[in-house]
Amino acid sequence: MLLRELREQVLEANLELVRSGLVLHTFGNASGISRKDGLVAIKPSGVPYEKLTAPQIVISDLKGKVVDGNLRPSSDLATHLELYKHFPNIGGVAHTHSEFATAWAQAERPIPCFGTTHADYFHGPIPVTERLKASEIAGDYEQETGAAICRTFARFDPDAIPAVLVAGHAPFCWGPSAAGAAHNAMILEYVARMAYHTLSINAESRPLARELHDKHFLRKHGHNAYYGQVKT
Amino acid sequence: MLLRELREQVLEANLELVRSGLVLHTFGNASGISRKDGLVAIKPSGVPYEKLTAPQIVISDLKGKVVDGNLRPSSDLATHLELYKHFPNIGGVAHTHSEFATAWAQAERPIPCFGTTHADYFHGPIPVTERLKASEIAGDYEQETGAAICRTFARFDPDAIPAVLVAGHAPFCWGPSAAGAAHNAMILEYVARMAYHTLSINAESRPLARELHDKHFLRKHGHNAYYGQVKT
Amino acid sequence: MLLRELREQVLEANLELVRSGLVLHTFGNASGISRKDGLVAIKPSGVPYEKLTAPQIVISDLKGKVVDGNLRPSSDLATHLELYKHFPNIGGVAHTHSEFATAWAQAERPIPCFGTTHADYFHGPIPVTERLKASEIAGDYEQETGAAICRTFARFDPDAIPAVLVAGHAPFCWGPSAAGAAHNAMILEYVARMAYHTLSINAESRPLARELHDKHFLRKHGHNAYYGQVKT
Amino acid sequence: MLLRELREQVLEANLELVRSGLVLHTFGNASGISRKDGLVAIKPSGVPYEKLTAPQIVISDLKGKVVDGNLRPSSDLATHLELYKHFPNIGGVAHTHSEFATAWAQAERPIPCFGTTHADYFHGPIPVTERLKASEIAGDYEQETGAAICRTFARFDPDAIPAVLVAGHAPFCWGPSAAGAAHNAMILEYVARMAYHTLSINAESRPLARELHDKHFLRKHGHNAYYGQVKT
Repeated sequence: MLLRELREQVLEANLELVRSGLVLHTFGNASGISRKDGLVAIKPSGVPYEKLTAPQIVISDLKGKVVDGNLRPSSDLATHLELYKHFPNIGGVAHTHSEFATAWAQAERPIPCFGTTHADYFHGPIPVTERLKASEIAGDYEQETGAAICRTFARFDPDAIPAVLVAGHAPFCWGPSAAGAAHNAMILEYVARMAYHTLSINAESRPLARELHDKHFLRKHGHNAYYGQVKT
Repeated sequence: MLLRELREQVLEANLELVRSGLVLHTFGNASGISRKDGLVAIKPSGVPYEKLTAPQIVISDLKGKVVDGNLRPSSDLATHLELYKHFPNIGGVAHTHSEFATAWAQAERPIPCFGTTHADYFHGPIPVTERLKASEIAGDYEQETGAAICRTFARFDPDAIPAVLVAGHAPFCWGPSAAGAAHNAMILEYVARMAYHTLSINAESRPLARELHDKHFLRKHGHNAYYGQVKT
Repeated sequence: MLLRELREQVLEANLELVRSGLVLHTFGNASGISRKDGLVAIKPSGVPYEKLTAPQIVISDLKGKVVDGNLRPSSDLATHLELYKHFPNIGGVAHTHSEFATAWAQAERPIPCFGTTHADYFHGPIPVTERLKASEIAGDYEQETGAAICRTFARFDPDAIPAVLVAGHAPFCWGPSAAGAAHNAMILEYVARMAYHTLSINAESRPLARELHDKHFLRKHGHNAYYGQVKT
Repeated sequence: MLLRELREQVLEANLELVRSGLVLHTFGNASGISRKDGLVAIKPSGVPYEKLTAPQIVISDLKGKVVDGNLRPSSDLATHLELYKHFPNIGGVAHTHSEFATAWAQAERPIPCFGTTHADYFHGPIPVTERLKASEIAGDYEQETGAAICRTFARFDPDAIPAVLVAGHAPFCWGPSAAGAAHNAMILEYVARMAYHTLSINAESRPLARELHDKHFLRKHGHNAYYGQVKT
């Protein structure tokens, strides 16, 4: 993939986060990776979205060294890199402080799967990381955040649950591309919002039955998927 | 009714769901039936609303066989057909994952009638289906969803309560036409939202008295209706 | 006041309700009175707001007899008339099913005065009517609704608390004009929303101290008001 | 700073409050100070935002004497002045009745720091003032409101926590300029909203660990800040 194309995709994913109402001020960032080159494109740090242009998107290698671009990358770059290194199938990462997903992260509660909207996208509850230790916060904080996410996914398949809640912070989502990650961030926020209401209506609400959860996830994502138009 | 006209009506009802803020991404679909021909027009599966055109609306017979159109119908078609077969007076069906109605469906709680807004449209609480059995999920899932709705309405009049909450899924609404079904979906969401707030303010809130519920429903829907302008 | 001018004012107040997001579909109506003539102008029944024009506004006398206009008046006319007859200083009435004020009405709980926003407009909690008796519902229902409001205000000054919650129904507001009534409906909804959140944060929240409530109401409404620009 | 420039900045900050959805009707005001001249520019009282122009911004000295402008200043001027006198580093003040921050003020509960969004801007919980005494309400009420804020900050650093909740009233925020104060008002509302949801999800939610709170505040505000682009 050409760097220019990657930058355009990452710019577009960042703007999609804004259009979806997921970011406040400059809180949030999306990135994409060219696996062939081992290069990651990410939003620059603290630049207002309304002024963001493709050439401002920063290109970094997987060690965090900026190889192209005049601005500093998002301070969350090291978290994104950790995910790219440990989740080999993902092509994009999106981070927001969206209202309800962030509230679940602050409450340190996984989002249960209460319905088929959730099941269509996430094959299980959205997990929460452990809190970072003081030594991790004092160390390479952003990388440690990524490491905490990866430890959480020791028990889960990141391709089947493309989202996590970082305790006391906010969600990170991923997907096959920057656009896919941003799309998952939008669905996650909606799912987080409805799960919140569900528990308010009935504190004893039961998660979806396993069979129905499988049915919905697999009718969109499995080998026998029949949702949408046939890809030919 | 000409197929072209039916398609236009169904397109318009689908777009009305979007304009009313009831659908997220591609979650939702509206259909209409020509009773004379036994033909149903429904949204194609997974097509973004902003690109939807009337010729893309799929025409199916009541057995689910596509008789006109180049795209696959919504994966929920079998649910719609079940409703058309068992509720003989309805002319349209609308399905959304609207935020609050879906939360009630996920909480598996019927929406009580707390006020006249509800009573103007629904002559009783909005019922919730039973959960599907594993064998039903493994079988013809979408048809079984419709069958579960019909079983729920063994005890209710679908013309007086034109909406249901499918447990762990979301609402289905119906009406005299696709437009009427979409309109009921909008009212249902508002009623669901206000019922939620009502219980949050006072967990002991009492349903509307039967007399007042009847009064409001019948002043709009009964033989002596006096709301709106006289139809001549 | 010329009827034409009154109609324009009432049209504008009805449209202001829509612009403020207080009405769903056709739920809501505003009216105004010309005290000199004893004539009331009100929205016609069931007409969509986007098509409403000044000549469609219906003119009624205080007994509910339409004296000018081709359409049927809002079915709530009799409620408005009852308020005009018993609250001699008011010049306009606005009725909405706005989301949070209606939830309080459905929960049958008065809205406590938790803050200065409330105190600036309403000199006490917003009261709730008693439920109507079956015989009142079976009788002249809309007039009985007005009578129930007036009975509630046997203990309150309608000029100091220009709003009420009709149990199981929704709010009615009033003011010096149709525009003033619509403005109070907007403030009421905001106050209802914040009171809801206040109780969610702290179920033991205390109402504003009497002195502060008086201070805020009187700095805007009393003889020594000093808020806003001096009227000369 | 020229008065004209100060007026423009204060006008813009007031309009930013409106664009951010923080003000209802005329509830809210922003001001800015020229420290060199000891002059404060503030919104006039009760003027609708949509008609506000820079020449209407009122210029007052630190004793509250209007030295330039034809309109009366906001009735909250005395509160703003008290803050300028006691918090020597601030250049602007913003007051709103924004929905969730006001609800916390009405509930008389400090907003706990549940996440990094909060920590990025406020180095501790957002405190609530004591209620004013009857004698203070009867006295110079607006000045006493400012004095109550200053007493609350006897225990806090106003530069590290640029916001307060006035009990039973609403938030006041400040910052290096009128624009900075308005920006803090927007962040405060978002933080208030998420803290509300956090407690609804988990009433036992724990505040952020001190180390993480420090980390986030200091990476944006400390001498070793590394968020955003390097200022050169």
